[in-house]
Amino acid sequence: MKPCRVYLDWNATAPLRPEAREAMIAAMDVVGNPSSVHAEGRAAKAIVERARGQVALLFGCEPSQVVFTGGATEAASLIIHQGWDLVALGHHAHDCFEKAVVPYTNANLKTHLVGHDPGSWRTASLPLMADWAERRKTLCVVSGGCSETGVVEPLALVVDIAAELQSTANEKRVGDPDHSVNIATDMTQRVGKASCVGQASDFSICSAHKIGGPKGVGAVVLTSGLDLQSQIAGGGQEMGRRSGTENVIGIAGFGAAAEAAARDLANGVWDRVAELRNILEISLDAAEKDIIFVGKGAERLPNTSCFSVPGWKGETQVMQMDLAGFAISAGSACSSGKVKPSRVLRAMGYDEVTAASAIRVSLGPTTTEEDVLSFADAWGAAYKRHKARAA
Amino acid sequence: MKPCRVYLDWNATAPLRPEAREAMIAAMDVVGNPSSVHAEGRAAKAIVERARGQVALLFGCEPSQVVFTGGATEAASLIIHQGWDLVALGHHAHDCFEKAVVPYTNANLKTHLVGHDPGSWRTASLPLMADWAERRKTLCVVSGGCSETGVVEPLALVVDIAAELQSTANEKRVGDPDHSVNIATDMTQRVGKASCVGQASDFSICSAHKIGGPKGVGAVVLTSGLDLQSQIAGGGQEMGRRSGTENVIGIAGFGAAAEAAARDLANGVWDRVAELRNILEISLDAAEKDIIFVGKGAERLPNTSCFSVPGWKGETQVMQMDLAGFAISAGSACSSGKVKPSRVLRAMGYDEVTAASAIRVSLGPTTTEEDVLSFADAWGAAYKRHKARAA
Repeated sequence: MKPCRVYLDWNATAPLRPEAREAMIAAMDVVGNPSSVHAEGRAAKAIVERARGQVALLFGCEPSQVVFTGGATEAASLIIHQGWDLVALGHHAHDCFEKAVVPYTNANLKTHLVGHDPGSWRTASLPLMADWAERRKTLCVVSGGCSETGVVEPLALVVDIAAELQSTANEKRVGDPDHSVNIATDMTQRVGKASCVGQASDFSICSAHKIGGPKGVGAVVLTSGLDLQSQIAGGGQEMGRRSGTENVIGIAGFGAAAEAAARDLANGVWDRVAELRNILEISLDAAEKDIIFVGKGAERLPNTSCFSVPGWKGETQVMQMDLAGFAISAGSACSSGKVKPSRVLRAMGYDEVTAASAIRVSLGPTTTEEDVLSFADAWGAAYKRHKARAA
Repeated sequence: MKPCRVYLDWNATAPLRPEAREAMIAAMDVVGNPSSVHAEGRAAKAIVERARGQVALLFGCEPSQVVFTGGATEAASLIIHQGWDLVALGHHAHDCFEKAVVPYTNANLKTHLVGHDPGSWRTASLPLMADWAERRKTLCVVSGGCSETGVVEPLALVVDIAAELQSTANEKRVGDPDHSVNIATDMTQRVGKASCVGQASDFSICSAHKIGGPKGVGAVVLTSGLDLQSQIAGGGQEMGRRSGTENVIGIAGFGAAAEAAARDLANGVWDRVAELRNILEISLDAAEKDIIFVGKGAERLPNTSCFSVPGWKGETQVMQMDLAGFAISAGSACSSGKVKPSRVLRAMGYDEVTAASAIRVSLGPTTTEEDVLSFADAWGAAYKRHKARAA
């Protein structure tokens, strides 16, 4: 008999939705290349275009504003590739943005890592403005929901700062039309869990597998209609913005998952998930009074709980919970297996021990109350053993 | 009743193999992110690593030499991204290589397009050598089989030229160890149809969907063990060579297709395909004596026939054959819908009218003799109507 498992790592990846599975299997029977002009090619193209419309609905935009990529990391890389002179990353930004900036730092690109709370975005505007005289193209990257903590960065405030920067630039450089301040929102974790419609940004990124689609497909959404230069050139697919034969089966799954995710969101499915997350946090808090819930005071995604009991290593907890039948994580999945403590938590002001002791539990629409209560029990029991050993 | 269709556009994309379909559906049930350390994550990672081994077998290399990408175009882009000072492309190179070079031409990168026949690769070594004094890193791109014509470029000759360049460089620049001449082979069309084992190159690229796997997944194979700097940075997947959560379902299909393709190749399946191609060409030749078979004298992939009757536009033929129930193409799928005549054929010395009148018929393991004979009949009949109209 297979042991029963409880999956509480939805921010790492969500289970494939039945709708996505069905759409993918249907797409397997369509033989054509979407670039081919014959009937088989047109049928494949129709699958891609249908999915484009389904993803567009999540952002309330036109299908032509959706650019399919091989995932959110490639989407981030494509945005960073646009020749910025200055990139301002919030501390909740996913690592892939920071890593994507590195190759360009030789070319005088300057990166600012700005603080995690609303106030620090405000103060961060000062060094940005000091640099402004030399910089013509600035990108601010805002996290719509941090993968590790669930914390939502203050987009409205960043929009204000961007407007302020832009107007200062306009005053200082009358007649120089090339100055710009643009905003990219990382919606990878937010999409499907909270509204992404009507966001005042220029680019958004997202990923199919976080909303119950397949891994290996994502999108850049040209939220304000601003265009992109391709990073991967070739056959000119995606209106020349991202070349390469389209992942037709994966895109079909992305579209179906997007439609199902929009339906779930409209039906208030995540309100119930937020309740479960609260039940989880109350239960954990009862097991250990000194537990620290990271970002609990801030606006958070409804499904994410990040917490730390300083001194009990996150990796150890993940392994013990895994043996007990629970899939959770320490930090983001991408940085799993790496030993250093979370950059996000360190930036939020937590000390190294607290940061290294954090784990993330993330829920989804099929998570049950029994799942979270049994997790809290198992975690509490493991914690008691840890305390006994440490004593 | 659905009209019966005959698919003769395998170079654009091959139908999904049953083995790939089965492996993909099985992978849909595995929920984890391959970067996660828990049981679900390890199960997902196992799928990716199994497929890596299956793809490695096609190249006779170690699994660790296979780097999964979002397709052959991304793979080409990744190779071109390695900071070359000079890139020599044969005229049979896929457009994606030429397009991938463009962004780097600002950085003094020089591209040579060299002739299509063995002799022209030899003469091409002269300008390469003239440039050599200024260039430290040279890449020669060799097509293992052209998508449009099926022509196989002379790798052995290019290896000789590369060695000659390298030795000249060593003579001229004693004590300068940084000079290099590397070779990339585009195996996208060749893989599965002819051996790719033991090729004397540094990098190979290939794509799942040309061998009956899904679209949107490919690989760079580090044939000589030389490493790569990532173009897409982030979570450090693929040993840091290509970041982004792996396309687990697609990769599962790629692996299964690779294994099936290796089995087909070993069983001589493509010898029978070559016979069908010959039957096709004999039948077409019988219908029109002035038909030009492109690259017929050269080494060709077993499944590809590219032919032209000057004055009868390729696009018109594709549309007429589509209406008659046959999927074929004019040029490579990626450049379908674009009106300019084939760059490859022009470079081979054909005039514009001949190049614009070419079509490509490409067969696969499930193509039957009836398929090719009925195509030849339909094409012959359409050609008669064309001649009647033209007269």
